Amino acid sequence: MSYVPSQLIQKKKRGLALTTDEIRWLVNAYTAGVVPDYQMSAWAMAVWFKGMNDDEIAVFTDAMLKSGSRFDFSKLGGPRIDKHSTGGIGDKTSIIVGPILAAAKVYAPMIAGRGLGHTGGTLDKLEAIPGFRVALARAEFEKHVAENYFSIMSQTEDICPADKKLYALRDVTSTVDSLPLICGSIMSKKLAEDLTGLVLDVKFGSGALMKSVNDAMKLAQLLKTTGEKNGLRVIALITNMNEPLGRFSGNAVEVHECYEIMQGKTLLENGHDFYASTRELSLELAACGLLLAGRADDIAGARAHAHELFNSGAALREFEKLLAYQGPSDISKLPHAKFSRVLKAARSGTVQPMDSEVIGMSCVELGVGRKVVGDKIDPAAGIEMFVRIGDNVKAGQPLCRYFSSVESKLDSTEKMLAAAIAVGDGAPERLPLVAKVLS
Amino acid sequence: MSYVPSQLIQKKKRGLALTTDEIRWLVNAYTAGVVPDYQMSAWAMAVWFKGMNDDEIAVFTDAMLKSGSRFDFSKLGGPRIDKHSTGGIGDKTSIIVGPILAAAKVYAPMIAGRGLGHTGGTLDKLEAIPGFRVALARAEFEKHVAENYFSIMSQTEDICPADKKLYALRDVTSTVDSLPLICGSIMSKKLAEDLTGLVLDVKFGSGALMKSVNDAMKLAQLLKTTGEKNGLRVIALITNMNEPLGRFSGNAVEVHECYEIMQGKTLLENGHDFYASTRELSLELAACGLLLAGRADDIAGARAHAHELFNSGAALREFEKLLAYQGPSDISKLPHAKFSRVLKAARSGTVQPMDSEVIGMSCVELGVGRKVVGDKIDPAAGIEMFVRIGDNVKAGQPLCRYFSSVESKLDSTEKMLAAAIAVGDGAPERLPLVAKVLS
Repeated sequence: MSYVPSQLIQKKKRGLALTTDEIRWLVNAYTAGVVPDYQMSAWAMAVWFKGMNDDEIAVFTDAMLKSGSRFDFSKLGGPRIDKHSTGGIGDKTSIIVGPILAAAKVYAPMIAGRGLGHTGGTLDKLEAIPGFRVALARAEFEKHVAENYFSIMSQTEDICPADKKLYALRDVTSTVDSLPLICGSIMSKKLAEDLTGLVLDVKFGSGALMKSVNDAMKLAQLLKTTGEKNGLRVIALITNMNEPLGRFSGNAVEVHECYEIMQGKTLLENGHDFYASTRELSLELAACGLLLAGRADDIAGARAHAHELFNSGAALREFEKLLAYQGPSDISKLPHAKFSRVLKAARSGTVQPMDSEVIGMSCVELGVGRKVVGDKIDPAAGIEMFVRIGDNVKAGQPLCRYFSSVESKLDSTEKMLAAAIAVGDGAPERLPLVAKVLS
Repeated sequence: MSYVPSQLIQKKKRGLALTTDEIRWLVNAYTAGVVPDYQMSAWAMAVWFKGMNDDEIAVFTDAMLKSGSRFDFSKLGGPRIDKHSTGGIGDKTSIIVGPILAAAKVYAPMIAGRGLGHTGGTLDKLEAIPGFRVALARAEFEKHVAENYFSIMSQTEDICPADKKLYALRDVTSTVDSLPLICGSIMSKKLAEDLTGLVLDVKFGSGALMKSVNDAMKLAQLLKTTGEKNGLRVIALITNMNEPLGRFSGNAVEVHECYEIMQGKTLLENGHDFYASTRELSLELAACGLLLAGRADDIAGARAHAHELFNSGAALREFEKLLAYQGPSDISKLPHAKFSRVLKAARSGTVQPMDSEVIGMSCVELGVGRKVVGDKIDPAAGIEMFVRIGDNVKAGQPLCRYFSSVESKLDSTEKMLAAAIAVGDGAPERLPLVAKVLS
């Protein structure tokens, strides 16, 4: 069966649902180059305006999955769990969640992304460790998952090629921010991992794609429904991205923070532990993963299990196995930025809700991330937060430290950070770290 | 000044107006191939949803005009008038309007189109006359306009190349039916003719792009405003396309009808003159042209002038000059279709409102028009109407005759026509030929 692309575009433009056959044909014909970019971008824009229903999204996701090859981990005979975040600043939990799952002998085959735009990518963070390799061959990844439970690799050419092609097109046609397209892109890649369960960390707030809890809930529900329609169990947490997660945002510094946390360290200052939010969220995500894996009967039991694996040092040992296997890599040699500066409070008052997206863009400016695909990143660059929303500060008190391997980048970043971290008179509400759970 | 195309797409997607510089840059960069088709189609789809304001449309139109070269008729020292129709079935008035204008010594430089989709094109009609040439060189066209007032040619490569490129893209991305884009496409080409006035025939009804008078009014107002913002005076008539105009729809047969009308003939049958609507609309459009050209002080005077030029045979003589100049062509040798059939009323009753779009598609099926660019047309094919909406008919009475050079095409057309021209019990309202005037 073949279709006329302009008629499929027209149908979507008029707000009608495409049939299963139409969606499969469109995705396949686009991947094969039969439907050209200029028709696919018009369709994507029509989707931006008119959306897709749950069945369309599920089929669209499956079609993207089937445009490439899927892993087959069924022979392992155990649950396979991954965790996916919709992107945030200082969002480093995969580095802790993976080892906890591995310590519970739950397979965690993670195919991770790189940072683009104002949010970071786990691969960039791990690559800051001298010697760490993420460009694994399929066989090497499969072997590591089978032997050590947790492995992390970059996307290969044969995983969801339709998504690869469509994502590049969406990026230049202003059609990235479409819930159905986001959903298809995320879930097709997760389905390719042949998981039995997925924990989603859907961020809300100033540094997230979704600014409100309600919008984040919508995306979470869509992702969950799409997973479930394709046979994958999903738990989604709606979590706070109104300020960076934990102490550090960057690449090497985030690995450092995770490593310290897994070693049982805290970072007490001004009455808080600045590692608390990273630790708490990682443990909660890991607990959800253990629950999906059947390692506990309820979330309370799963939490207890995750804490035990974390506190006993079992997770740390799994992380060290990862460092050895995907190396040899040397975490004692994380790079340090040559240049740094401290942002100080211009006045006394209370730290107001931050513009975390601007903090994320400041990170990109410092060299943490990429403005366009192919940009070289600075593994040592980043930001260290000295305050949280609602803290009382005195004029001149340090708000954060920012650092880079290129001194001039500190200048261009300074104003952005000063605007993003404001001190004022209001007493802002502190929203919870985990606002909602969809299970 | 250069722009990031995806940011311009985003702006439009969010419903914001682009600036003059942004629109000019986009059109020029697209024409030059700097902005690729896939970005332009996403932008066009965003325009389909969000529209453009009057200023944007005016600038967009001017940018398309300036992508190519414009005629310069200012040295002629007199008014230049064209008439443009948004497309209908049996819509043949240019063939009569041009000669009336020429008879009044009003320059009428017409760049006409070919039929595509369910509506016909004046060029296809005139080319049905053996020997008639429409592919004139610019110089030949200019000379004929200067000497004989009226000439008609096909679009050349150097007129509005941006529109040529964008129209082809819109055709395959379901973005044809966007008022601002339609407006830019029509008006850029009309502005290229260096007119002093334009008469628009904006059709409404089942055979028109705009189904309701209100929608046609919107398009007419947009076209008029766009012309006026670019210094062109415009009168727009909103006219009835709920049934084919006049007796015949096709190519040779429409020329035949016009020639008979200009010779003063009528076609009286069942109490009507089946040539009346063609004659009446042509004279009204010509009168508006004469008014714009300053040949009368008011529309009543302009009507009287048009009727006089028509009744005196002056218009017919101008048409015969055209046949000689753009030939030599021989109107006595119009082709006749080899095969024809008559559609008869299946029951007695009243002719209901017709589906003129389906009648137009029946014409295409018979060979009158093209399904895709490049299709060969049949100059002899067409339809002859024996009834009008509201006529009382007896079972077995002929409703229309349809004809083609290919016998098998009669079979595929029969059902379409039977569905489009229904006989029933209601007494449908007959809407006026000219519903509204915007002057």
